[in-house]
Amino acid sequence: MFEDLVASLRSVWETEKDVGLHEPIFIGNEEKYVGEAIRSTYVSSVGPFVDRFEEDIASYTGAKKAVAVVNGTAALHISLLLAGVRENDEVLLPSLTFAATANAVMYCGAIPHFVDSEYETLGIDPINLRQYLDEISDQEGGVTINKKTKRRISVILPVHVFGNPCKIDQILEIAKDFKLEVVEDAAESLGSTYRGQHTGTFGLLGAISFNGNKIVTTGGGGAILTNEEELGQMAKHLTTTAKVPHRWEYVHDQLGYNYRMPNINAALGCAQLEQLESYLVFKRELFGKYKNALNGQKGVRLMQEGNSAKSNYWLQALVFDQKINKDDLLNLFHESGLGCRPAWKPLHKLPYLADSPKSSMLNTELLVDRVINLPSMQIN
Amino acid sequence: MFEDLVASLRSVWETEKDVGLHEPIFIGNEEKYVGEAIRSTYVSSVGPFVDRFEEDIASYTGAKKAVAVVNGTAALHISLLLAGVRENDEVLLPSLTFAATANAVMYCGAIPHFVDSEYETLGIDPINLRQYLDEISDQEGGVTINKKTKRRISVILPVHVFGNPCKIDQILEIAKDFKLEVVEDAAESLGSTYRGQHTGTFGLLGAISFNGNKIVTTGGGGAILTNEEELGQMAKHLTTTAKVPHRWEYVHDQLGYNYRMPNINAALGCAQLEQLESYLVFKRELFGKYKNALNGQKGVRLMQEGNSAKSNYWLQALVFDQKINKDDLLNLFHESGLGCRPAWKPLHKLPYLADSPKSSMLNTELLVDRVINLPSMQIN
Repeated sequence: MFEDLVASLRSVWETEKDVGLHEPIFIGNEEKYVGEAIRSTYVSSVGPFVDRFEEDIASYTGAKKAVAVVNGTAALHISLLLAGVRENDEVLLPSLTFAATANAVMYCGAIPHFVDSEYETLGIDPINLRQYLDEISDQEGGVTINKKTKRRISVILPVHVFGNPCKIDQILEIAKDFKLEVVEDAAESLGSTYRGQHTGTFGLLGAISFNGNKIVTTGGGGAILTNEEELGQMAKHLTTTAKVPHRWEYVHDQLGYNYRMPNINAALGCAQLEQLESYLVFKRELFGKYKNALNGQKGVRLMQEGNSAKSNYWLQALVFDQKINKDDLLNLFHESGLGCRPAWKPLHKLPYLADSPKSSMLNTELLVDRVINLPSMQIN
Repeated sequence: MFEDLVASLRSVWETEKDVGLHEPIFIGNEEKYVGEAIRSTYVSSVGPFVDRFEEDIASYTGAKKAVAVVNGTAALHISLLLAGVRENDEVLLPSLTFAATANAVMYCGAIPHFVDSEYETLGIDPINLRQYLDEISDQEGGVTINKKTKRRISVILPVHVFGNPCKIDQILEIAKDFKLEVVEDAAESLGSTYRGQHTGTFGLLGAISFNGNKIVTTGGGGAILTNEEELGQMAKHLTTTAKVPHRWEYVHDQLGYNYRMPNINAALGCAQLEQLESYLVFKRELFGKYKNALNGQKGVRLMQEGNSAKSNYWLQALVFDQKINKDDLLNLFHESGLGCRPAWKPLHKLPYLADSPKSSMLNTELLVDRVINLPSMQIN
């Protein structure tokens, strides 16, 4: 039954070649800027490309401050710390995400607490979330406590899955009602907006990734976004080993992290950002082509941005109505030269996270057997 | 009294220009390899330069396995975890080192326990260390316990300060007698050996840094060294989010870290490594010139490798017999265009580490007022 579907999707690509999930393309000033960085000898943690990249990211996203770091995981880790996550806190996050979302919580000594996702956006389901918090939490002295574990719940960590904005406005309302902070995992959603505002700028802090598989890459890299000037300064401080500026003295005023983005990586990023608009155009056109190809196919739809959202369509995704045999389908795709992949194994199913507190995972477990990512790379 | 000294040291540099502490130089294949990485599109966590860099580092140091990571701090963190450091353990380390040495201990949830350094190598004083462990520790069921805090002491973390090998053989003996593991902080000592063996390969694991201020740079980067095949594999696994290899499934079998070195940074490192021998020749010649310049100067000596050691002379250091007024001297140096700096503020004096357990800090506190690093950069 899948042969027809695969053939339709294959026809989108006007090439005989294998097409991967995502690959970076470097057709702009990448070599020029990186060469400049090398010739300047500023390749490391200080340099003009780091400053420029931070300004470019802030300007593009509309965040007051952007701090460039070594990867998206580091951006999440520091964002959570600055949002006040303390040891033994619980942080609410979806299970349908990359492991780094939960790992960053654990780096803070906190406990990932998984909540269900929804079909429409693949992000946190706000209706379920509110009901769940009503059931399991108490307010004690302005703090939300998990009635069962007696631990403080401090932060909601929504994810914009595959670049598709989640229902961040409803999540912000819930956060306000339950006195929680919001940190956005916008690792995948550079270029995605909700009601015209860039993802990652709604919460107190947000984290972007520039890994090689993202819409814009710095080799490895990430950024912390915030609209609070003071938090931005703290983010810079914490990611540069908490060193107090001095001409020659080495004084660190707290436990810091070596999370700086090197200038050579920022140089690559500056050139990539210049291309971002064209990448977004390509991704949107690809969405249209896949959608046409799916015309008439029953039991399957293409993930699509909501009314209030604009997706960067970083990774295109199929959502099937019924449970599919993933291995059969993926083998078929791969035989046709289409580098598809399933959604992540849900995090609450991973051995090291299996004991984490969680809500009903009804939708998450349904989705996992129904979602397949399609090749989304741009061919030169 | 210092004018004469400063003038002598200034005369070493056959230039009128300001001379900094250290700057990288890129006169080899740096742009070529980095350009290759960009054109291949492999700029991120997988790529041929990462593999080659790891092989080059293993081959150069003689370590069975080298794992390239995002920086020296990450290399230390993972090395400590793999050496068995657990939450609430104590790790013995010098106070006279960069903050990252202690921070890496804290990332494991463990407690830095500072021990004194010695004049000869600026590293851990083995005589004091043995006596101190005799005094403060008990053996309980094959485990070394701090009698006062009741915590397990699990690892000794010696540092090869400024590239100068510490007395690693004596430290290994103490570790054996007290059933402790050794992790070497070789962040500064690429190219330094002890009895012909490369620093960082004596302990169970060792950490190297390729930060921009080191003898070889990858922009930002580090490496984990080990002679244990299994530990090397675990190091690779833990630094790549503990993802279990699969064609498309995302399964992570434990809490992992996003500590991979990007291929673009490894490309820079491969080119830099080709130059390492010439850097070492330069650094050693510079040592000779400084030593000549200090001829006849009283009350001060140049840090020098011990009989059994070969230093990379990464950062040249003056050691004064008497306490000096550092600010006066450093101002004088800077006015003469010599970018000197004092030793680090000892870590046990930093507010966030002030409550850490520690031995007598007699030598450390004396040294801090007597050590100045000299410009050690290579001028093209």
